[in-house]
Amino acid sequence: MDEHQQVFLRDAMRRMNLTRDALASRISVRRRALDTWLLPTESHEFRSMPDVVRQFLTEIMARDTGEEHAQSVPKAARHAFFDPARPALLSVDQFNRQAIDELFQVVDLLQPIARRNKTTRVLEGAVLGNLFFEASTRTRVSFASAFCRLGGSVCDTTGFTFSSMAKGESIYDTSRVMSGYVDALVVRHPERGSVAEFAAATNIPIINGGDGPGEHPTQALLDLYTIQREFSRLGRLLDGSHIALIGDLRFGRTVHSLIKLLALYRGLRFTLIAPDELQMPKSIIDAVVSQGHAVETESMLNENLAGVDVLYATRIQRERFTGEIPEDFAPAFQVNRAVLEQFCNPHTVVMHPLPRDSRPGANDLSTDLDHDPRLAIFRQTDNGIAVRMAIFAVLLGVDHLLARSMRDATWRAPRNVGPNDAVFAGFD
Amino acid sequence: MDEHQQVFLRDAMRRMNLTRDALASRISVRRRALDTWLLPTESHEFRSMPDVVRQFLTEIMARDTGEEHAQSVPKAARHAFFDPARPALLSVDQFNRQAIDELFQVVDLLQPIARRNKTTRVLEGAVLGNLFFEASTRTRVSFASAFCRLGGSVCDTTGFTFSSMAKGESIYDTSRVMSGYVDALVVRHPERGSVAEFAAATNIPIINGGDGPGEHPTQALLDLYTIQREFSRLGRLLDGSHIALIGDLRFGRTVHSLIKLLALYRGLRFTLIAPDELQMPKSIIDAVVSQGHAVETESMLNENLAGVDVLYATRIQRERFTGEIPEDFAPAFQVNRAVLEQFCNPHTVVMHPLPRDSRPGANDLSTDLDHDPRLAIFRQTDNGIAVRMAIFAVLLGVDHLLARSMRDATWRAPRNVGPNDAVFAGFD
Amino acid sequence: MDEHQQVFLRDAMRRMNLTRDALASRISVRRRALDTWLLPTESHEFRSMPDVVRQFLTEIMARDTGEEHAQSVPKAARHAFFDPARPALLSVDQFNRQAIDELFQVVDLLQPIARRNKTTRVLEGAVLGNLFFEASTRTRVSFASAFCRLGGSVCDTTGFTFSSMAKGESIYDTSRVMSGYVDALVVRHPERGSVAEFAAATNIPIINGGDGPGEHPTQALLDLYTIQREFSRLGRLLDGSHIALIGDLRFGRTVHSLIKLLALYRGLRFTLIAPDELQMPKSIIDAVVSQGHAVETESMLNENLAGVDVLYATRIQRERFTGEIPEDFAPAFQVNRAVLEQFCNPHTVVMHPLPRDSRPGANDLSTDLDHDPRLAIFRQTDNGIAVRMAIFAVLLGVDHLLARSMRDATWRAPRNVGPNDAVFAGFD
Repeated sequence: MDEHQQVFLRDAMRRMNLTRDALASRISVRRRALDTWLLPTESHEFRSMPDVVRQFLTEIMARDTGEEHAQSVPKAARHAFFDPARPALLSVDQFNRQAIDELFQVVDLLQPIARRNKTTRVLEGAVLGNLFFEASTRTRVSFASAFCRLGGSVCDTTGFTFSSMAKGESIYDTSRVMSGYVDALVVRHPERGSVAEFAAATNIPIINGGDGPGEHPTQALLDLYTIQREFSRLGRLLDGSHIALIGDLRFGRTVHSLIKLLALYRGLRFTLIAPDELQMPKSIIDAVVSQGHAVETESMLNENLAGVDVLYATRIQRERFTGEIPEDFAPAFQVNRAVLEQFCNPHTVVMHPLPRDSRPGANDLSTDLDHDPRLAIFRQTDNGIAVRMAIFAVLLGVDHLLARSMRDATWRAPRNVGPNDAVFAGFD
Repeated sequence: MDEHQQVFLRDAMRRMNLTRDALASRISVRRRALDTWLLPTESHEFRSMPDVVRQFLTEIMARDTGEEHAQSVPKAARHAFFDPARPALLSVDQFNRQAIDELFQVVDLLQPIARRNKTTRVLEGAVLGNLFFEASTRTRVSFASAFCRLGGSVCDTTGFTFSSMAKGESIYDTSRVMSGYVDALVVRHPERGSVAEFAAATNIPIINGGDGPGEHPTQALLDLYTIQREFSRLGRLLDGSHIALIGDLRFGRTVHSLIKLLALYRGLRFTLIAPDELQMPKSIIDAVVSQGHAVETESMLNENLAGVDVLYATRIQRERFTGEIPEDFAPAFQVNRAVLEQFCNPHTVVMHPLPRDSRPGANDLSTDLDHDPRLAIFRQTDNGIAVRMAIFAVLLGVDHLLARSMRDATWRAPRNVGPNDAVFAGFD
Repeated sequence: MDEHQQVFLRDAMRRMNLTRDALASRISVRRRALDTWLLPTESHEFRSMPDVVRQFLTEIMARDTGEEHAQSVPKAARHAFFDPARPALLSVDQFNRQAIDELFQVVDLLQPIARRNKTTRVLEGAVLGNLFFEASTRTRVSFASAFCRLGGSVCDTTGFTFSSMAKGESIYDTSRVMSGYVDALVVRHPERGSVAEFAAATNIPIINGGDGPGEHPTQALLDLYTIQREFSRLGRLLDGSHIALIGDLRFGRTVHSLIKLLALYRGLRFTLIAPDELQMPKSIIDAVVSQGHAVETESMLNENLAGVDVLYATRIQRERFTGEIPEDFAPAFQVNRAVLEQFCNPHTVVMHPLPRDSRPGANDLSTDLDHDPRLAIFRQTDNGIAVRMAIFAVLLGVDHLLARSMRDATWRAPRNVGPNDAVFAGFD
C-alpha cells in the first residue's frame, strides 16, 4: 500500500487541520522525512513511510477526530454530499467541510492516474453522455478525458441545441431518453436551473457542467483543491488565510461558487477587488461575513494585497459595463509581474479560471508571469482531471474499487507536461 | 446458465406463439412460477427454473416447430436476414418472421447489459463509423452507446456534409475510404437510397440510420420488440391484436416500416387515424390487406379505438398541409388522458417514435400521460440500446460469443432509470 | 513468432535494398516460396519460413549492413527522428532513410491490426486530443481510429475555432491546458507554423495533422509506404524508379512533402506535370536535383510517361488560376483510362491523396479507373491506419510492446474491404 501513503498522509493533515511542520512535530519526525513520504511514488526522492508511523497517526486521528479510525482507502457510499438514490452534483451548496475532505481523499488517490503513471478500468463498459448545449471545449474535454481515464466511454453532443429540442422536445423528455442510453450525464446549458431540470427527470448520476449565470461546481471544487495542494507545499492552512478575488466579481459564477466553498473554513480574510459596477453581490458578501470571515472591498489593486496568500484573477469583459469605462481601467485590475513585485510576497499563489485573454490590451492576467513559479493556473487546470475523475467515481459508487484497480501505464509520459512547469525540488 | 433462462423462455414463447398463460398451462406449471423465471436475474423475486422444465420445453419445441432443438444461446451466422459476405441492414424488407425471432433472441440476451447489470468486451478493438449527414442526436448517441457497450470504440461525424463531399467526393469514395478506417458504418443521410449507395461500395457491415423519406429500420425493429415485450407482460400475442396508428401516416417513414413488420404476423386489425391529406399511402394499405389483415381508416380519434391493444401516436407537422388546416385539427388527433379514458382499456400500450413536441398547442402526444403506466415511450427508447447492440453483434458475427463474455458491471446503476418509470410488480 | 516473419522479411529487403527476386536469389530459395512467406498469416497460401532461413538472413544482414543483427521486433526509443524528451512529428524534414526504415518496420508489424485480424490494448488508458481547427473528416477519423485500435480513447474537437480561442486564448495556453487533459495531440490548423507553436508549449507527443500551406507529414509517409508496398509486390526498388507528379504542384503541400521524402532515395527520375502557373516551386526542384535526381517539368500528359512507375495525381482547383484558364485545360491533366492505355505500362501504380472530385467535368482523377487494379488510391488510404498507428506507438514509446500484445480479433471482418478491391493472387 506504499503507493497510497500520500493519500493517507494528506487525509490526516486535512482532517487534523495540520501543516506539514505541525504534523512532523506532532509525531516527532523530521519535516524532510515527511516531505519524501508525500512525493509521488515514481519520484527518485520518494521514501516509504514506516508502518509504525501509519499506526501512530491512525491512533492520533481516532482520538483527535473522534472517528473510529482512519481509512487509507475510502469506502463506497460514505459520501454525504448527495443522495445515492438520485446522485447529482448541481451546486456547491451540497458540500460541508467533511464532504469536501472525503471527496479530496479520492482526488489524492487518483493523482497517479492524472499524472499518467497508472491506469484503471474501473468504469469499463460505462458510457458518459457529455451534453454541451453551449460551447466550452476545455470543460467538455476535461470531463470526457476524466471519464475515459476511469475506463469508460464517452458520447459527446455539442452545438447550441439538440436537434430534437429544436423540434419542441422538453428537457424532461431529453433527459429521460438520454438516461436510457448512458450511465451518467454532464450537462452544460446556457440557462440557470436547466441542469436541475435535467436532474429531475432521471435517476442516473448527473453533473452540472455550468448552467449559465448559475453554478459551475466542478470548477469551484478544483479551485479549492488547488489552493489546498499549493498550501500543503507551502506549509500553510486554509483556516486564517488571506484570499484576494479580482476582476468581474458580479457576473463571474466561478468566484461566487468558490467563495461559498472557502467560507466553509475558519477565519479567512477576503479582499474583493473590482470596479464598483462589477463588485461581488451584497447577498454573498453578507453570507460570508455572517460565517465569521473578514471581507474588504477595493476598487483597485493596492497595498492591501500585502501578505495575500492567493490572488485569484478573472477577466473583465468590456461588454459588462453599462456606463462609461474609466480611462485607467485596465491597469487598475490587471495582475502582472509588476503588481506581484510591488504588493505580494514570494509565495503568493496566482490563479485564474481560464481561459485568459492574451491579446494585447486585454484586461486579463498578464503573460509576463508565464515563467513565474507562483503562477498556478496550469497546475489548476491539471487538477481538473483528478477532481472530475473523483466526482464520477463517487457518484457512480466505484471509489472503493479504485485503489486495487490501478495498473502501471504502458506509455512514456513526460515528467512535466509543460516545458515551463515549475519544479519544486523534493516537494509536491 | 440461470441468467439466460429468460432468453430461453422468451424464445420458446415466441417460436411456439404462446402467451404466458398458454405456456404455463402447456407444461403444467403455475403462471406465477413462470413469471418469476422471467424476471431479471437481479430481481429479488427471480427464481431459477428447474432443469426438468428446460428439458421438457426443449422437447416440446423440437416437436412443435420441427426444428432439431432449441438453442439457449444463438449460433453465429444463423441469421437469414443478410448476406454474410456483404452484411447490411438497409430495410425492414430484409426480415421474415423467423429472422425477427432470431434477432430478438439476441436482444433478450443483451437485456442485462442494457439494464447496466452486465458488461461485455466482445467487440474490443473494433471501431464504429457513425456518419450523420443529418442531425439526429438521440439516434446517433443510441447507436454509439450500443457499440460502446459491446466493448467497441466510436468515431462520430456530424453536420450536414462531410468536408470532403463538399469538395465533390462521391458517396462511393467516401464509403470505401471510411471502410478502410472502421469496422462498421451507421449512416444517416437526408436522401432516400443514399445508404444503399454507401453499402454498394463496401463489404463491411453497414446500417441504415435513416435515409430521408426512405427507411429507418432500427426504429421499426425496436418498436416491434417493444410491442412484443409489453404484450408478453400483458399476456397477449401479436397475432390477432388491434393496432392504431395515429397522426402523419403519409410522410412518417416510421409507421410505414412498422406496419410492414407487423404485417408479417397473422390476423391483425389496423386502425389508421389521420387527416385525409396525411393518410397512409394506398400501396402500403393494399399490401397489408393482401397479407390478410383488416385495415380501417379514420379521420379522427373515436370509439373505434375500443379494445385497441397499441396506440402508436406520431406528430403532425403543420408544414405538411398543402391546403387549409381545419379548425378542430389538434383535438382530433392528440392522444391524451381524456382520449385514453374515453376510448381505451386499462392495458392499452401507448407508443411514440419520439421526439414529441411538448410545447403548448403542439399537435402531439400529451404530457398529461407522463405518470400513466400505459405510456411506454421511454421503455421504447430504452429498448433501442439492446436492439441496436443485437444488430451490431449479429452483423459483426459475435452474437455466439455474447453469453460467455458477460461480466458484472462495477458501478451502481439505478433500479429504474427515470423517477416516473412504471414498476409492474413481479413482471417484466 | 511466425506471424511476424513478414515484418522480418520486409525489413530485411528494405535494409539490404533488395527486390524479392534479388533476395530469393541471394539466399537460394525459390521466388514463389518467398512470396508465400510474405503473405498475411491468415491467407490460405501463407507458409512458415524455416528457422534456418531466418538465421541465414540475420547473418547476411549483420555483415551487409554492419549492424549487430536484425531485430524482428523493434526496440523502444530506437527511433531517431524525434527527441524523446519532446516527442513530435511536425515535418518530413525530421526523417532520414534509416528513420523511415525503422518506422516502416513498425508499420509492417501493425498490418494484422489494420487488416482487423488482430487487436491490441497497448495504449489502454491513454487519451488522444484530436484538435481539428479546420474541417477534415477523413483525416480526423483516420487518426482517431488508429489511436482506438491501439486501445486508447479519443477526445475530438472540430470546428473552425475553439470556443476559448475565440475569447482571445493564446495557442500557448490552449496547448498547455489540453496537454494536462490528454496524452497526445493531433493538431490540424489552417495557419502554417501553428502546430509548431502548439508543440512549443507542451512535452506530450504532438503530431502535425496539416498546418495550412505548411506540411501534412503523415500523408507523405503513408504515400511513401504505399509506394514501397506496391513496389515490393511488383518486384521493384524505389532507387532508380520513375515518379510522375501531376496537377497542382505549386500549392499542393502533399506533393511538396512527398518529393522531399522520395529524394532521400537514390537516382530517381521525376516528371512534374502541371500548368505553368501551378508548377512545383523552383526551390524544391533545385533541392531535389542537388540530391542527384533527374527532374523534368512538363505542361501536359504525354509520352514522357512511358515506363513511369508511379503516377501521382492531384486535383487542380480552378480558383488557383490568377489569369485565364486555357480551354484545353482539363483534358491536359486528367488521369484516366485513356491516358494509362496510351502512355503507361501494365504495372504503373496510380495514386492520389484524396478526396478526388468525382463530379462531371472535374479536373481530377477519373472514375473510369475504379475497376483497374493499378488504381492504388484505396490501398493508399487503408495504409493510413497502420502508418498513423505506428507514429503513435513510436512517439508514445510503446512500439516494443506491440508484438507480444496482439490478440485475435473476435469479429468477422471481410477479406477485402471494398467490393472492387484488386486481388493479387498469392501476393501482398
